[in-house]
Amino acid sequence: MLILSTEKLPDECKRLLPNARDQFNEDDVPKADILMLWPLQAKVFLPKAKSVKAVQTFSAGVDDFPFSLLPKGVDVFSNAGAYSVSVAEHAFALIMTLAKGIGKRDRTFRPYPLTGVNLMVLGGGGIGSEVARIGKMGFNMYVIGVSRSFKRPELFDEKHNISELKDIIGKADIIVDTLPLTKLTDGILNYDMLSRVKENAIIVNVGRGETVVEEDVYRLLKERKDVRFGTDVFWRKNGVEDFNSKLWELDNFTGTPHTGGAYGNDVVKTNAIIEACKNVYNYITSGKAENKVRIEDYL
Amino acid sequence: MLILSTEKLPDECKRLLPNARDQFNEDDVPKADILMLWPLQAKVFLPKAKSVKAVQTFSAGVDDFPFSLLPKGVDVFSNAGAYSVSVAEHAFALIMTLAKGIGKRDRTFRPYPLTGVNLMVLGGGGIGSEVARIGKMGFNMYVIGVSRSFKRPELFDEKHNISELKDIIGKADIIVDTLPLTKLTDGILNYDMLSRVKENAIIVNVGRGETVVEEDVYRLLKERKDVRFGTDVFWRKNGVEDFNSKLWELDNFTGTPHTGGAYGNDVVKTNAIIEACKNVYNYITSGKAENKVRIEDYL
Repeated sequence: MLILSTEKLPDECKRLLPNARDQFNEDDVPKADILMLWPLQAKVFLPKAKSVKAVQTFSAGVDDFPFSLLPKGVDVFSNAGAYSVSVAEHAFALIMTLAKGIGKRDRTFRPYPLTGVNLMVLGGGGIGSEVARIGKMGFNMYVIGVSRSFKRPELFDEKHNISELKDIIGKADIIVDTLPLTKLTDGILNYDMLSRVKENAIIVNVGRGETVVEEDVYRLLKERKDVRFGTDVFWRKNGVEDFNSKLWELDNFTGTPHTGGAYGNDVVKTNAIIEACKNVYNYITSGKAENKVRIEDYL
Repeated sequence: MLILSTEKLPDECKRLLPNARDQFNEDDVPKADILMLWPLQAKVFLPKAKSVKAVQTFSAGVDDFPFSLLPKGVDVFSNAGAYSVSVAEHAFALIMTLAKGIGKRDRTFRPYPLTGVNLMVLGGGGIGSEVARIGKMGFNMYVIGVSRSFKRPELFDEKHNISELKDIIGKADIIVDTLPLTKLTDGILNYDMLSRVKENAIIVNVGRGETVVEEDVYRLLKERKDVRFGTDVFWRKNGVEDFNSKLWELDNFTGTPHTGGAYGNDVVKTNAIIEACKNVYNYITSGKAENKVRIEDYL
């Protein structure tokens, strides 16, 4: 059983996976049973990986993965959940900056209360669950979950399917988008959807830029000064996330250049790699790994 | 029993205190048993209030109260705790903006984790307790309290007296100052104290500006780029809080112009007035009101 990793593996990984190699050359790829890599790297490795049975990504999102190159029967496992705590903290930082007007020097801004308001979380996975937990435990929020499935259903006061979003989005004081980018979620927050939000709503995106339509949220923020939008994720131009959005011109916008996950934080990154290794270990020993990607969501 | 209030009293106050009047003229003041007012208004009313037995302030802080004009034996009750939830939310908004670099467009800023870090809370009253609660429940922080007394001691993992601050301030990743301004706390965060903080420490002030020495925190932030400071409270020049501080020039500073309490929020303000009325009701009916000011702390 040969496992190849494009990231240097910490000691805990080497204990779990004694057959894993983080130094290898091109000739090793055809013999590999399992590949551990970042989604875009699969473009290079998949065509050569003649014996591959499973792929484990280091990233939580797999929307960049070249699923069309994947041989039939090969499973892909994402690293969903590995960055949940830092991304959920980041989502709350965006919410609170917008709610309280932090950094605004003049006294024209009036802060909005957080305690007890309606928090709507799009996506019930690792990040969405941690956002729900902080909202409930930290600020006694009423938490409305909108997702296909819920990792921790007990954290949500209401649970809805994503198909109901149009009818319930107007109930939320705060909306946090933690959605992966799939065929279903691409552009789900378009003008028709966004224009239904409540007065003074705060919308935050820590999922993927493209789940929100950039032109549409810009239009909404221009038309409705009461609505505020914050994002850590931006829209890709030619495959590369472009942090230069015209949203930055607007007073009711704030953001960060995709620094909410492991960016610049070695502890978060190392822990995420260890999570990936644990998942591969479970796959090998029991056949039961988490975060198996539903390839039909992407192709 | 005549009660005079300088703020319009909501219906709940009128039920609790049928003898309270929020419309009165100068001739009524000498007959008043209890005055409900903002601290600075006491300058006008106290000299005329010949029958006054107690004064209830609408504000939590009483550092602006003219204690030298207070006849012997007259009690002053503050409204400590009435703004706790919104001010504690505000403190966390300042912390999170600084920890996550919200609004910084370039990728040079690396976010800091919040979960599980050491949170030091200066002041164990209403605001300090709510800050401790959010830290513990929302972010699993280890909470170190520094105060003369603790309203909710169960929320603190460690409790220290303010006299120990110099020896323990270096343990904190995050320091939240919720202190009232008294003889004891005036300038307590001076250069000698501030220079002892841990690498990458975040310091936030929602107490009173003057508990921090403006020149000293400016010097510290210039010398140590790793330390970050956020404040909602500024330093008074000629008795008026001046939001034009040179701290705004600095990249490792953020603030808000004292908007953390009831500013622009009628619900918070009305609730604070009701809290004051409840306290007066308790004083009248049982003699036991909360937040009795220790006048010797100020004179």
